[in-house]
Amino acid sequence: MASLKDVADLAGVGVGTVSRVVNNHVSVKPKTREKVMEAIKALNYIPNEVARNFKMQRSNMVALLLPTIWNPFFSELAFYIEDELDHAGFKLLLCNSGGKPSKELYYFDVLNQNKVAGILGITYNDIDSSIDTQIPIVSIDRHFSKSITCVTSDNYAGGRMALRELVKAGAKKPAFVGVVTSVYSETMLRKMGFVDEAAALGVDCLVYEEPDPVADEGQFFRNFLNRAEHREADGVFAITDMFAAQYIDQVGSYGIRVPEDVKVIGYDGIQNSALFHPILSTIRQPVEEMARMSVQLLLRKIDGQEPEELTYRLPVEFRPGETT
Amino acid sequence: MASLKDVADLAGVGVGTVSRVVNNHVSVKPKTREKVMEAIKALNYIPNEVARNFKMQRSNMVALLLPTIWNPFFSELAFYIEDELDHAGFKLLLCNSGGKPSKELYYFDVLNQNKVAGILGITYNDIDSSIDTQIPIVSIDRHFSKSITCVTSDNYAGGRMALRELVKAGAKKPAFVGVVTSVYSETMLRKMGFVDEAAALGVDCLVYEEPDPVADEGQFFRNFLNRAEHREADGVFAITDMFAAQYIDQVGSYGIRVPEDVKVIGYDGIQNSALFHPILSTIRQPVEEMARMSVQLLLRKIDGQEPEELTYRLPVEFRPGETT
Repeated sequence: MASLKDVADLAGVGVGTVSRVVNNHVSVKPKTREKVMEAIKALNYIPNEVARNFKMQRSNMVALLLPTIWNPFFSELAFYIEDELDHAGFKLLLCNSGGKPSKELYYFDVLNQNKVAGILGITYNDIDSSIDTQIPIVSIDRHFSKSITCVTSDNYAGGRMALRELVKAGAKKPAFVGVVTSVYSETMLRKMGFVDEAAALGVDCLVYEEPDPVADEGQFFRNFLNRAEHREADGVFAITDMFAAQYIDQVGSYGIRVPEDVKVIGYDGIQNSALFHPILSTIRQPVEEMARMSVQLLLRKIDGQEPEELTYRLPVEFRPGETT
Repeated sequence: MASLKDVADLAGVGVGTVSRVVNNHVSVKPKTREKVMEAIKALNYIPNEVARNFKMQRSNMVALLLPTIWNPFFSELAFYIEDELDHAGFKLLLCNSGGKPSKELYYFDVLNQNKVAGILGITYNDIDSSIDTQIPIVSIDRHFSKSITCVTSDNYAGGRMALRELVKAGAKKPAFVGVVTSVYSETMLRKMGFVDEAAALGVDCLVYEEPDPVADEGQFFRNFLNRAEHREADGVFAITDMFAAQYIDQVGSYGIRVPEDVKVIGYDGIQNSALFHPILSTIRQPVEEMARMSVQLLLRKIDGQEPEELTYRLPVEFRPGETT
């Protein structure tokens, strides 16, 4: 069966020219087009070969797997990812996995069929066993598996920073409040940094955790606050901004005021405007940098290069608000 | 130049069979395949025809054009659109147009090449002249042109509802505050409903508008509040929730309290949680219904059916918050 290359050789042109003729591109001179058409005829170059070549073209799409786009942190991330992909000529396929592994695995399947060039993903599912580490994937904020490139914020440094800021704001009994996932997650480092820094400064600290996912965050904090020793905490570092806001919402009914009685620090930096209160004091993730770096690393992988590091941890900063 | 139909006629088969041969489909009998290949040879049926047919295969992707996904209204909309498309076996290509017509037009080009099956779009650009009304497009919240199906909330009824709710809350001097776009936008109906309902009830009302886009919303409201008669408004209907929040933020420095001195109602319903204040009283758009209906109408168009209506206006509701 004649190939595109055979046609090109017979016509005395490059394969790109044959491809342009085949695709009816305007930039081909009539004379050249004629030569190519003759070669196609002579070799009985058959159509399905063309169809196949078409399919084999590298996809210019990248899939983004997120638990849900309807979340300020993820939608900010998606915004910058789309922008960075656009600059590189790639398009973004959006998938709200909704935490369903089946929906995530579908995209890995599509990736294997070369319909997408690569995947950027945030998943909290344990789908490691389904992933071939050779394919272009960059994980954000969580390790898919030990051998997949991951871009995250410096959660450990963030945890340490939160402890120091609570102490600086006057807290003597700081508490960490969060969730534990069944698979390893970078977010666990927030607690570790917090606890380690407390030990280093000789400060007593509390840790309260429930297993992920938390179905009712209000109930989570009522469980927490129902214990007298937890109500004595005068500083709270919540694992996310939404947890911080929930805590603040609940603690008021115990007659505990923020920031007078308890200082509160969240993690993420989801608030974009100063129009809604409380404006949380928070450890701000460098969302734009994380997004752009994830894309750059993925493009490098798509080009066949392996990034030097396995985990890229970008620096966080403390953004003071109204709660410390 | 021979067509697929010519090949089918000569081979004595249907065009579908030729297409299956050309695409190397397994379901074709060897005998039939041979007949088709002979006809292809005899007619000198040329590859770019095949390439074109290949392109003509229906894509399972739908492009969503949004000004930016980094906005709670748009990200909620995108969440439900992706969910509805997923149920129908379609994938979502996300494009933050950033208000750039060039980026939007790129997708119309891609649509014309059959790389996406259809487009769902929110645009505030005047790109009507570039759009062929025969292709599958559904516009959300704004008419691309008079002949493209549009799904929107009932902005006019929403404007009337806002006026009635302000009056019910005690306002005697209600004001509409918004922007004017250069092209026709459904959002203009918010003002019209408001003004008409005021006339119907015999209530005096104010209208304050600046041309879109507003570069500095803080400045917009300082302009508004610098006029004494505007400070006498005891009810404000802002064109969006974000405008309402900006107004509330600015009006405090004039010693005017919300809701004691002025009742405020926004439009959209962007707040998903009761954790951040003020919780705006607002005209809530039925985002989920708008998203799912847009997808259903688009799928109908992709199947070659024309929806019965040109504009689908879904009912809104008043959601009381802390500002009335």
